[in-house]
Amino acid sequence: MVISVDAMGGDRGPATVIAGMAESAGRNPDIRFIVHGPQAELERLIARRGDLARRCDIRDAAGVVTMDDKPSQVLRKGEGTSMWSALESVRRGEATATVSCGNTGALMALSMLRLRKLPGVNRPAIACLWPSRNPQGFNVMLDVGADIRADAQDLLTYALMGASYARNGFGLERPRVGLLNVGTEEHKGRPELKQAHELIPTTAQAANFDYVGFVEGGDLPSARVDVIVTDGFTGNVALKTGEGTAKLVGELLKEAFGKSVMSRFAALLAMGSLKRLQKRIDPRRVNGGVFLGLNGTVVKSHGSADATGVSAAIKLAFRLAQSGFQDRLAARVAQSVAAAGQINGSKESEAS
Amino acid sequence: MVISVDAMGGDRGPATVIAGMAESAGRNPDIRFIVHGPQAELERLIARRGDLARRCDIRDAAGVVTMDDKPSQVLRKGEGTSMWSALESVRRGEATATVSCGNTGALMALSMLRLRKLPGVNRPAIACLWPSRNPQGFNVMLDVGADIRADAQDLLTYALMGASYARNGFGLERPRVGLLNVGTEEHKGRPELKQAHELIPTTAQAANFDYVGFVEGGDLPSARVDVIVTDGFTGNVALKTGEGTAKLVGELLKEAFGKSVMSRFAALLAMGSLKRLQKRIDPRRVNGGVFLGLNGTVVKSHGSADATGVSAAIKLAFRLAQSGFQDRLAARVAQSVAAAGQINGSKESEAS
Repeated sequence: MVISVDAMGGDRGPATVIAGMAESAGRNPDIRFIVHGPQAELERLIARRGDLARRCDIRDAAGVVTMDDKPSQVLRKGEGTSMWSALESVRRGEATATVSCGNTGALMALSMLRLRKLPGVNRPAIACLWPSRNPQGFNVMLDVGADIRADAQDLLTYALMGASYARNGFGLERPRVGLLNVGTEEHKGRPELKQAHELIPTTAQAANFDYVGFVEGGDLPSARVDVIVTDGFTGNVALKTGEGTAKLVGELLKEAFGKSVMSRFAALLAMGSLKRLQKRIDPRRVNGGVFLGLNGTVVKSHGSADATGVSAAIKLAFRLAQSGFQDRLAARVAQSVAAAGQINGSKESEAS
Repeated sequence: MVISVDAMGGDRGPATVIAGMAESAGRNPDIRFIVHGPQAELERLIARRGDLARRCDIRDAAGVVTMDDKPSQVLRKGEGTSMWSALESVRRGEATATVSCGNTGALMALSMLRLRKLPGVNRPAIACLWPSRNPQGFNVMLDVGADIRADAQDLLTYALMGASYARNGFGLERPRVGLLNVGTEEHKGRPELKQAHELIPTTAQAANFDYVGFVEGGDLPSARVDVIVTDGFTGNVALKTGEGTAKLVGELLKEAFGKSVMSRFAALLAMGSLKRLQKRIDPRRVNGGVFLGLNGTVVKSHGSADATGVSAAIKLAFRLAQSGFQDRLAARVAQSVAAAGQINGSKESEAS
């Protein structure tokens, strides 16, 4: 199983990405890489990692997409960058999935240009993982920022894609899907949400998921639901709000424990429990936004990810590649489009 | 200073509301109440609270607005409920502000019907407090659910009203106002956000606040900003997401400390620090959504508030009443409408 890795564009530079690859390679004997970036620099970094060189092809790419580059610029001038090159490996079928720590907007724009959207998908989505009370330890939320708009049909597609992701990525037989709204009552929310609320249940049976109806912001970490569907504006605000809140509580906790000799001593005693808790809500463990709705699997790692974070994103890419996720997702969407066509077709024939 | 209190409609019933009033009365010798609900029941509850009866007028109202009542029903049949009666006291000028723990949608609908919108305000807003890194300990966010839509002009009005609230409620001379978006770059976000981003700075000087530009979900608890402006859909999702995340982290923390004898002992040692932390992020301390943009001050307490929470909401209502907030806010909005009229006027004369 080959994963294509963009070594450049993350906040911590290629050394961290290579370290993450080495971590993954050490744990997973079945993984191989194609890595993209300036040849000489990558050779030097990989040579330090002993065994890694044997499992790694380098594709020379001098250009780098920076965090400040606008997607429109990257679309025009992106050829020759490591990001473009990393996507090419997936497009040509040399790798099953790709991982990048780079600029999210640029990566989505290039992915749409080079990999193209799946037939039947109008707006691709970015799915993130959210620490939760569920046995699997997290919930899936999409879209968290591919597009600031989504109509009812897009939200239906997100439900299908999110359910497929949860099934193939995390072994959930029949994921429970909820639609994010400002209340759980039927009359609440924007018109497109009310439409989607009517639309989604009609495909839930065929697409093998349960629709639990409207959910609220407080349900994101709950065990009521496995997949949360929303537009990319709301999803992005919710994601960053959750991260910001968890960070604030963590910082205040650290301050509280540092305040007195007694509480510092207490922190030492509780170290084991606190470490386990930290691990449970560690954002590095759930690192990896997955782009859904393209002809190819793209995993976007946090720009600031360290080696552990990069390794988590690679693991996610590998797991999806191994499960045959891409083909299954494409089949689900095609089936749904066909079913919708039949419904529309039969409506038309009724009307005629 | 008289505060009108709706004793009914909260999840914990009138006993909790009366207990909260007693708590406030004990701390604040300048406060008086008009309390609304079934006369006999309220008399009985107040009689138990010693001194409270002397500072409290009862208005008999047999009807109760429940959490399940739809706003449209309450508009038609709400006369005779304690909620309606509580608003009447403000409308007639017997009380300066009102507090209710009841159904938010119904309270907003009744407030708009009975108190009417301030001239120049198209959509009223609900402002909440958000624990933050700022010296005042929290930030103001609006709208968190009065209306699921907001255009650029509404967002400008929210900026004015939020700044006025922060100034009068919390003594911030020159509040810093940010506009919630999915990124801080100018080209990001929905069209109405880009328009508001142009519009808000034009009134910041005259309205005595600083506009810091776009902010993201992660900035809600930050010290970069005092007031965060957004539409009621996004604001409601963000509020509930933040509450849900803080709750999850708190529960996991409790579990972590309960896990072993050692960590239970550690928790005992750290009790003082943890209690201080809990107090800092205690949602009861920041209890009270304020309805802005009406002819009268309405404070909405959490439905599940306990006596401490009710008392915090009453304190907020009292502070706003004391500062002359209502008149100042009305003056700000009127001034801004006049200024906008002048701008439009001069544009028209230029055009003609």
